[in-house]
Amino acid sequence: MTKGVKLYEGKAKTLYEGPEPGTIIQYFKDDATAFNNVKKGTIAGKGIINNRITDLVMRRLENIGIPTHYIKRLSDREQLVKKVEIVPLEVIVRNIAAGSMSKKFGVEEGTRLSRPLVEFSLKNDDLGDPLMAEEHVLVLGLATEEELDDIIDMALQINDFLRGMFAAIGIELVDFKLEFGRLVEDDTVQLVLADEFSPDNCRLWDFETGEKLDKDRFRRDLGGEVEAYQEVARRLGISLEAAE
Amino acid sequence: MTKGVKLYEGKAKTLYEGPEPGTIIQYFKDDATAFNNVKKGTIAGKGIINNRITDLVMRRLENIGIPTHYIKRLSDREQLVKKVEIVPLEVIVRNIAAGSMSKKFGVEEGTRLSRPLVEFSLKNDDLGDPLMAEEHVLVLGLATEEELDDIIDMALQINDFLRGMFAAIGIELVDFKLEFGRLVEDDTVQLVLADEFSPDNCRLWDFETGEKLDKDRFRRDLGGEVEAYQEVARRLGISLEAAE
Repeated sequence: MTKGVKLYEGKAKTLYEGPEPGTIIQYFKDDATAFNNVKKGTIAGKGIINNRITDLVMRRLENIGIPTHYIKRLSDREQLVKKVEIVPLEVIVRNIAAGSMSKKFGVEEGTRLSRPLVEFSLKNDDLGDPLMAEEHVLVLGLATEEELDDIIDMALQINDFLRGMFAAIGIELVDFKLEFGRLVEDDTVQLVLADEFSPDNCRLWDFETGEKLDKDRFRRDLGGEVEAYQEVARRLGISLEAAE
Repeated sequence: MTKGVKLYEGKAKTLYEGPEPGTIIQYFKDDATAFNNVKKGTIAGKGIINNRITDLVMRRLENIGIPTHYIKRLSDREQLVKKVEIVPLEVIVRNIAAGSMSKKFGVEEGTRLSRPLVEFSLKNDDLGDPLMAEEHVLVLGLATEEELDDIIDMALQINDFLRGMFAAIGIELVDFKLEFGRLVEDDTVQLVLADEFSPDNCRLWDFETGEKLDKDRFRRDLGGEVEAYQEVARRLGISLEAAE
């Protein structure tokens, strides 16, 4: 498919104007970054896998009633989505303490939380995506109270669904990052899930071995990134050979 | 008064066992620290002034029905308080963006917030007192939902009162830090305001000139710290000569 004008080059994806007004093409790259761009590299074939995993997750979430920006996969590395105004928040759902939460608050990695935690960070690379309280979101006018309530409800429902989905294939969903957007259609504004869902933006631990099957392999120089991403795709029943 | 065993040496105060069971003596030092102990110094006479200002503020807050740990001033640098179990949170109320909030979220210092913001940080020097959302407080079991609600209600009421009190003497209350404690008496637990209120833990800007009358003079090497603290005391009607 002919991509339109490049709109935005992100760390792991490039966005282009789509073929119809109000559409965007998300192109998944192999580039990997960590620690707010301090560490850079590539994971061969990652873009192809993340495109497929995001495709699967978005379709399954639509199926349980979560509104998303997703339309369809176009090719190995491209998917078509609806144009939305991104809410400038990284929405992180945590079931088990790990990563920044463990480091910041001194909670041992692997500690199971008494209930799922929905965290908000300001989506701003220059500021290092700082953690915010809901009060900051509201006082700074980044989202309305109704939007925040909707985001929390959706994030928790998505968490329940995805924990089940990963549990079925022997994987513990430790945490994940979501982004939401405002979709304007026929003069109505609807909050929808946007961006992607892939091992770039979540922690996945093998139930049996505890092996990390996500971007922590890259962040922490554990090696085997390509194999880990392939393993997640394989368990999800995604046949990478069949990718166009 | 004879101080008992030293219980804790903090950055600006030392705590000793009080004369009666369940009491503590807070001794106010001249030591000043900033940026999580990276910058250290002294502000001559600060301890005497902060003891007096805290005495005044605690008594006035008790008078409008805010429960506190405060009993009475004992001497120039000592005050008697009830022993409480400190809730491990720094409760920050902000009316105007400044300091860490401006830096962290890129909000220009001096921006008036659309409404007062109550922030929570984990009280942990080793971790740098990291900002937390209410969800972190609850999930990590640092306070109950009821306690958090009480803290927010009290913090906002204290803010209203203190803004009025400082407005009356030509000072804008920009932000301040509070700590709360659990007071156990006769098998009941009551949440009370604890610690201190002084220019060490708030930002005070002269309404007319914008001059800073608080610890930012020390943090930012502006000079005139002693005079600024004295000026706040003077405007509050505190006669330092009369201190015992």
